[in-house]
Amino acid sequence: MHILILGAAGMVGRKLLDRLVRDCRLGGETITRFTLHDVVAPEAPAGTGVPVSLSASDFSLPGEAERLVAARPDVIVHLAAIVSGEAEADFDKGYRINLDGTRRLFDAVRAIGDGYRPRLVFTSSIAVFGAPMPDAIGDEYLTAPLTSYGTQKAIGELLLSDYTRRGIFDGVGIRLPTICVRPGKPNKAASGFFSGIIREPLAGQEAILPVSDGVRHWHASPRAAIGFLLHAATIDGARLGDRRNLTMPGVAVTVAEQIEALRRVAGDAVAARIRHQPDPVIERIVAGWPRGFDPRRAIELGFTAEPDFETIIRAHIEDELGGRIAA
Amino acid sequence: MHILILGAAGMVGRKLLDRLVRDCRLGGETITRFTLHDVVAPEAPAGTGVPVSLSASDFSLPGEAERLVAARPDVIVHLAAIVSGEAEADFDKGYRINLDGTRRLFDAVRAIGDGYRPRLVFTSSIAVFGAPMPDAIGDEYLTAPLTSYGTQKAIGELLLSDYTRRGIFDGVGIRLPTICVRPGKPNKAASGFFSGIIREPLAGQEAILPVSDGVRHWHASPRAAIGFLLHAATIDGARLGDRRNLTMPGVAVTVAEQIEALRRVAGDAVAARIRHQPDPVIERIVAGWPRGFDPRRAIELGFTAEPDFETIIRAHIEDELGGRIAA
Ligand SMILES: NC(=O)c1ccc[n+]([C@@H]2O[C@H](COP(=O)([O-])OP(=O)(O)OC[C@H]3O[C@@H](n4cnc5c(N)ncnc54)[C@H](O)[C@@H]3O)[C@@H](O)[C@H]2O)c1
Ligand SMILES: NC(=O)c1ccc[n+]([C@@H]2O[C@H](COP(=O)([O-])OP(=O)(O)OC[C@H]3O[C@@H](n4cnc5c(N)ncnc54)[C@H](O)[C@@H]3O)[C@@H](O)[C@H]2O)c1
Repeated sequence: MHILILGAAGMVGRKLLDRLVRDCRLGGETITRFTLHDVVAPEAPAGTGVPVSLSASDFSLPGEAERLVAARPDVIVHLAAIVSGEAEADFDKGYRINLDGTRRLFDAVRAIGDGYRPRLVFTSSIAVFGAPMPDAIGDEYLTAPLTSYGTQKAIGELLLSDYTRRGIFDGVGIRLPTICVRPGKPNKAASGFFSGIIREPLAGQEAILPVSDGVRHWHASPRAAIGFLLHAATIDGARLGDRRNLTMPGVAVTVAEQIEALRRVAGDAVAARIRHQPDPVIERIVAGWPRGFDPRRAIELGFTAEPDFETIIRAHIEDELGGRIAA
Repeated sequence: MHILILGAAGMVGRKLLDRLVRDCRLGGETITRFTLHDVVAPEAPAGTGVPVSLSASDFSLPGEAERLVAARPDVIVHLAAIVSGEAEADFDKGYRINLDGTRRLFDAVRAIGDGYRPRLVFTSSIAVFGAPMPDAIGDEYLTAPLTSYGTQKAIGELLLSDYTRRGIFDGVGIRLPTICVRPGKPNKAASGFFSGIIREPLAGQEAILPVSDGVRHWHASPRAAIGFLLHAATIDGARLGDRRNLTMPGVAVTVAEQIEALRRVAGDAVAARIRHQPDPVIERIVAGWPRGFDPRRAIELGFTAEPDFETIIRAHIEDELGGRIAA
């Protein structure tokens, strides 16, 4: 089985690759080749006997997607995207990469046209939803995004379903929750603090909380995200019917509940490293975000996330901190 | 006020133009110029002193949209599209005209970029919805189309909202019900029989009913459609908030109720001209279509349709038959 990962140098891409290299198999089949693509040169994984092709380019440029699918990968995992803040700040870049790039990839598969029909996993986002929204958004709720990023993801979802319906590929779109705890350095995403208020205190550093602790949001760990991707790559597509995009399960918690979970897992001293410093800009952005979901279809189809936020914190401590908390 | 109509040679375009020529005004302002565009050369309206520019080309070709908006129309009514059946039969043509053409039009407005911000009316369709659906689809129901045409319209809706949110234009998208009674010759649209079973008998001809008379669907007259367009062209955009696409009101009736209304309006002899001849292909297509809506937002915003199907039939007799029924 040949697996192509677009956006392989990103946070999710690297974790997915680690897992696939470890497993050597996907859905009962032996992995025979990896193609790793990103605009940032992806690193070759250590310790695998599986042949790896590395490729670096902007996948949205004409001809790039054709080149990438020419080797007919069995599974295409499409993670390449620019994130919300950048797509909002740079209109042209967002539409070019997130929309045109995605469509060119889909059309490149179509252009082969001789019965080639790969599994195509598309990572959408809960940003396809916009206020007003119920506390628990159901699987039949309108996708009415309030950002260009969300718009581009929602369009990708529509194309994914239509191309799948037409037999061009076998698409599965997964709307990832906010991935928490995101490892690495703090980034400038407006959602960054949801991870920061856990990651920084556990590492002995102060974290800023820019919103009220009553804010409720929808989270899943990086570990859960990799589980979603593996399941999306292997599930029988027929079980999804014509609606190929699924809201992934997650944990709905308020910031206060996040902090309480941190206190239970790591103690008062760690939780005391969070400083509340309201930022009206971030507060306004976050007010337009989903608070929670009722993702029945995904659960029935076997996608699973953490049962609670404590488990999310413990996964971070195990996977990123070698089990150690900075006292 | 300068009004640009794209798709001006079509059924809705011609009726809209007739009405505007008659009114000479739109939303309290005097109309000072019409630009009429279609791939089929549009006809100049008779009896108007208002200057009319006629233009024929494929609006989806590079440069065409730029040319059309260069004169900075105050209102752009975008009706140009290829319909459901053709977009399904010709993948490339559907995506090129219905999606790329629409996006090029939107981008042409953006390219002017000096504060020009026209009202842009986009005609979407109830084909943005796909089964399974409730009997009365609410304003927050997921758009999950089951045709490429519906996919292209749903994408147009998403772009319309995002471009409006960014201040590029002031967009209003209206999801038209099936327009019934569609005047003119029978066409090959799978929905054609909904009009045919009224239009043909009233004209003294036999009509074929290819589905069971229990089929329920959502209708509005051409007259109502023109009312929707005029209201969409003039409503205060701020009243719509960020969700710029509205399901239009209509009449939900079964085919049996359509036939009963025909009998009441025109008598038994006319209603007897309908012959039931099941067509499994059309039955299957129609099974995936909406049966009705609960379009509260549009009603609250002042969009109005007929109260019942009899009124739709009477509008057809008045507007198309000069009041006369073929006995
Ligand atoms: N992390 C989250 O919380 C989250 C939530 C919802 C959805 N998602 C989606 O999941 C996917 C992966 O997320 P992530 O957290 O790993 O993001 P990331 O930013 O860490 O990784 C995305 C990768 O895509 C690459 N990329 C961007 N533009 C490219 C281009 N033109 N050509 C080739 N590669 C390009 C980037 O270099 C980056 O390595 C993305 O599509 C993202 O939108 C993530
Ligand atoms: N009539 C209905 O029941 C109905 C229902 C829902 C939505 N709509 C939408 O309303 C709009 C008007 O509908 P209508 O019934 O008048 O359709 P129509 O087919 O009568 O008119 C559409 C017009 O667009 C023109 N056109 C097509 N491709 C073009 C191109 N590339 N460049 C320029 N012009 C082009 C056609 O020549 C035609 O004159 C369409 O967008 C349609 O999708 C109609």
